[in-house]
Amino acid sequence: MKRSGRRPGKPDTREEILVSARELFATLGFDRASVRRIAAEANVDPALVHHYFGSKNDLFLAAVDLPFDPAVKVRTVAQPGVEGLGERLIHMFVTMWDSPAAERLVALFRAAHGEEQSANLVRKVFESRIMDVLNGVLGQTVDHIDMRANLVASQLFGLAMTRYILRLQPLASLSVAALVTIYAPTVQRYLTMDLSAVVNE
Amino acid sequence: MKRSGRRPGKPDTREEILVSARELFATLGFDRASVRRIAAEANVDPALVHHYFGSKNDLFLAAVDLPFDPAVKVRTVAQPGVEGLGERLIHMFVTMWDSPAAERLVALFRAAHGEEQSANLVRKVFESRIMDVLNGVLGQTVDHIDMRANLVASQLFGLAMTRYILRLQPLASLSVAALVTIYAPTVQRYLTMDLSAVVNE
Repeated sequence: MKRSGRRPGKPDTREEILVSARELFATLGFDRASVRRIAAEANVDPALVHHYFGSKNDLFLAAVDLPFDPAVKVRTVAQPGVEGLGERLIHMFVTMWDSPAAERLVALFRAAHGEEQSANLVRKVFESRIMDVLNGVLGQTVDHIDMRANLVASQLFGLAMTRYILRLQPLASLSVAALVTIYAPTVQRYLTMDLSAVVNE
Repeated sequence: MKRSGRRPGKPDTREEILVSARELFATLGFDRASVRRIAAEANVDPALVHHYFGSKNDLFLAAVDLPFDPAVKVRTVAQPGVEGLGERLIHMFVTMWDSPAAERLVALFRAAHGEEQSANLVRKVFESRIMDVLNGVLGQTVDHIDMRANLVASQLFGLAMTRYILRLQPLASLSVAALVTIYAPTVQRYLTMDLSAVVNE
């Protein structure tokens, strides 16, 4: 996300657009929440939304207030294919949480457990920015990609919760290399295991 | 936890004891938060705490407001030993979350992501009611049991978050049998994998 030193326009208008964006992204999802609708909800001209935030993508990132785009991160590690992807995902995920971005991630994570609307927003981030990207990059070569993305998330989110929110010991003190040794095989299995029996149950 | 139809004594006093108990369990942990201190904090006689809640154990369960004792659940599934424990744990965990108890679990889970004090309380529940029990039952036969308990929690808590809080699809619609197929091998590996390289890093 681009951060400029000075914000253009009145802070109130900008904040009103962000409030509308958060509400509509959470209730309608990324695709259905159009810039036109967000502008209407905030009582401003759509051109003003573009003026303040650039693309709808940038608006979304400003709304969830992450210092990076999860879609870009996921595309980068998924691009070389499914081989070794478990290791690359764990490495990327832990590095991200060990960085200064962690504060925002904790906030987003906590929000996901708060009100229903915030949980919806996090689900939408996941669906539109992670599952869609994985589908685009790996959809041709890997089956049941939505299910696999869910399974990988169930391990990564649990790692985030126990290591960074609850700070369970000794897990919270493990090195990145140790975490890769432990978790990469789990994630790799979720990405490659035979799911036909599970899906047809 | 025992629930009687009528509560003894004034509701206010009972509630004051619960508030003190939650605060001290969260800040001091289960062991150091004595009934005497909790009583002092609530300005009541320790005998009254026993009168209202029975044992310290019962008071703790009333404070976290769970309809069952996690320590009893964990002891039951761990008792037969580490063989097949992954499968028994997943089955117990998912059955619990699919039961009417789930509402309380979601509340406890959300609390864990809220204020720092609530996160502490959940960590203490985990340490005193789950890690201690596992240590008692499996400590003689399984090494690094604290670390293994952390790893198992990182998968179980992540499953709870994605399936029951975020309700990601298709994960939220999977049967218990499908979840056992997917997650039991992960949990079993965390319980039995060689951790010497990881611990000595």
